[in-house]
Amino acid sequence: MKKIAVAALAMLAATATAFADPLPSWSPGDAKARIIAFVDGVTDPGGTDYVTPAERIAVFDNDGTLWAEQPMYFQFMFAVDRIADMAAEDPSIASSPVLKAAAAGDLKGALAGGKKGLLEIIAVSHSGLTVAEFDAAVRDWLATARHPTKDRSYTDLIYQPMLELLRYLRDEGFATYIVSGGGIHFIRAFAEDAYGVPPERVIGSVGETSFEIRDGLPVIVKNPAIAFIDDKAGKPVAIDRVIGRRPIFAGGNSDGDLQMLQWTTGGPGPRFALIVHHTDAGREWAYDRDSHIGRLDKALDAAAGNGWTVIDMKADWRVVYPFELE
Amino acid sequence: MKKIAVAALAMLAATATAFADPLPSWSPGDAKARIIAFVDGVTDPGGTDYVTPAERIAVFDNDGTLWAEQPMYFQFMFAVDRIADMAAEDPSIASSPVLKAAAAGDLKGALAGGKKGLLEIIAVSHSGLTVAEFDAAVRDWLATARHPTKDRSYTDLIYQPMLELLRYLRDEGFATYIVSGGGIHFIRAFAEDAYGVPPERVIGSVGETSFEIRDGLPVIVKNPAIAFIDDKAGKPVAIDRVIGRRPIFAGGNSDGDLQMLQWTTGGPGPRFALIVHHTDAGREWAYDRDSHIGRLDKALDAAAGNGWTVIDMKADWRVVYPFELE
Repeated sequence: MKKIAVAALAMLAATATAFADPLPSWSPGDAKARIIAFVDGVTDPGGTDYVTPAERIAVFDNDGTLWAEQPMYFQFMFAVDRIADMAAEDPSIASSPVLKAAAAGDLKGALAGGKKGLLEIIAVSHSGLTVAEFDAAVRDWLATARHPTKDRSYTDLIYQPMLELLRYLRDEGFATYIVSGGGIHFIRAFAEDAYGVPPERVIGSVGETSFEIRDGLPVIVKNPAIAFIDDKAGKPVAIDRVIGRRPIFAGGNSDGDLQMLQWTTGGPGPRFALIVHHTDAGREWAYDRDSHIGRLDKALDAAAGNGWTVIDMKADWRVVYPFELE
Repeated sequence: MKKIAVAALAMLAATATAFADPLPSWSPGDAKARIIAFVDGVTDPGGTDYVTPAERIAVFDNDGTLWAEQPMYFQFMFAVDRIADMAAEDPSIASSPVLKAAAAGDLKGALAGGKKGLLEIIAVSHSGLTVAEFDAAVRDWLATARHPTKDRSYTDLIYQPMLELLRYLRDEGFATYIVSGGGIHFIRAFAEDAYGVPPERVIGSVGETSFEIRDGLPVIVKNPAIAFIDDKAGKPVAIDRVIGRRPIFAGGNSDGDLQMLQWTTGGPGPRFALIVHHTDAGREWAYDRDSHIGRLDKALDAAAGNGWTVIDMKADWRVVYPFELE
């Protein structure tokens, strides 16, 4: 009798799970319904849209798709803070106008050098230490740094609906990857804790590294030169190099994701492309075609032409940040 | 009663599996005993050497470690055959002495150009087509090409003991990766069928690729320039980029694997390094310090100094190729 009771309880639990809402922070509506219909289709072994678990690859941009990116990519905030720390120990590193500005915590001045200045700040702040040391530096920074206007830690500003989507996809047999223009070692320092995405499923931009023996122990050292920029056409190129399979699900939020969305949806069989449209000036930010961070212009046009699912953050997300649920 | 009988059978089967030899093609001896002791240690949840499944990363070189590499890397044989095919359609591609030699099927002449000639042959034979077209070309070639002296298909010349080792490790919760100096798209064309290693677990050398829209469809096109050579210090660098975790088990056979073995064994906790020493001139080939393919010199010295496990192919492998078991 006891065994039967346990079995009945297990069945009840399974039924409850089957009927539980996998995306509770998403408002009822077209976007949510389309996601669930897609997942139901590719996981139904008897259906015509069935996809084997090995081919259930889902890829997501990070900045602006899984966490916020305003007023500036969070990795850049880390870089500026790190240069200030470095300059406090050795003022000689502030050897150019942008580095001087960064050392003084002057974000505007640090940004004034354009792309060249940005790359200089990244090169100086992201090199000269081992990958393990860099990982520790990012973790230390994330533990204490606060967002300049939200007065929250940066990892508080991840998107609860996207966490639910990542978990839902994994529960349904998907492998979830991050494919970001951000630095691979920066993202790995928090992706597993924040998103449940392990190091081997993080694809990103990367600097040159070298293998060295230091004090008898092998280390990987980060060098200033850039090896690969994982943005725009670089995204499908990196997906091919690292995964070697074409994803069936992709999520992004800017023109930097356009080629990844094209590559994902350009294959045969069922495909899903999602764009997070930043429409919520109250809870988050509202920006698209004219933004210099996360510009969404060509990809928004492509979405309309290709039937991609555009998430209206204000309307489609009941909750934006996990802390709203606390 | 029926249920009890089924349960008893299941228990018997589990017991039989637990006592079955996971490495039947390995001769009883030190190498086999060390492998099994290591795996037992890292998978024993109560032991001091326990490693969580997520950190059970095993990396293997391919040429000379998982399949044969004499008289020349098999990928080079493919390249020469492909140039002959290409030249039959368009003789103008045979525009240099080495390309002429390759077009005529003259392996010696194709090799006479040294490293520069080799790169020329790889560039011409491995570019100008999409990744999908290249994959099909490799599969077609493997289905018909024969090894020049063994009169076997190339995929017949994989090593049965290493297949058993890969399967054993996976059964014990390891993720098994290939980390090869060979080309990533070449290896992916057979690694899943031959070794059970899926595309996302193949790391290798790679040429530049570009994302293009052809006839309205997105494609990844292989270009002649080399993007990354996954050999020597490149191996730990690629492991860091792609996996982002330090392996605990590594297998190689040549000096090209030295840094990967150093990186794997240079971390804390239990570590295993294995070197396949080609000592079997009868069933396979015998070569080490003086070979121009798969030279094993510095890594052999390092093995002695670091307690790495050197496999004496002649003594340690009862069976070399899977077809011996047919």
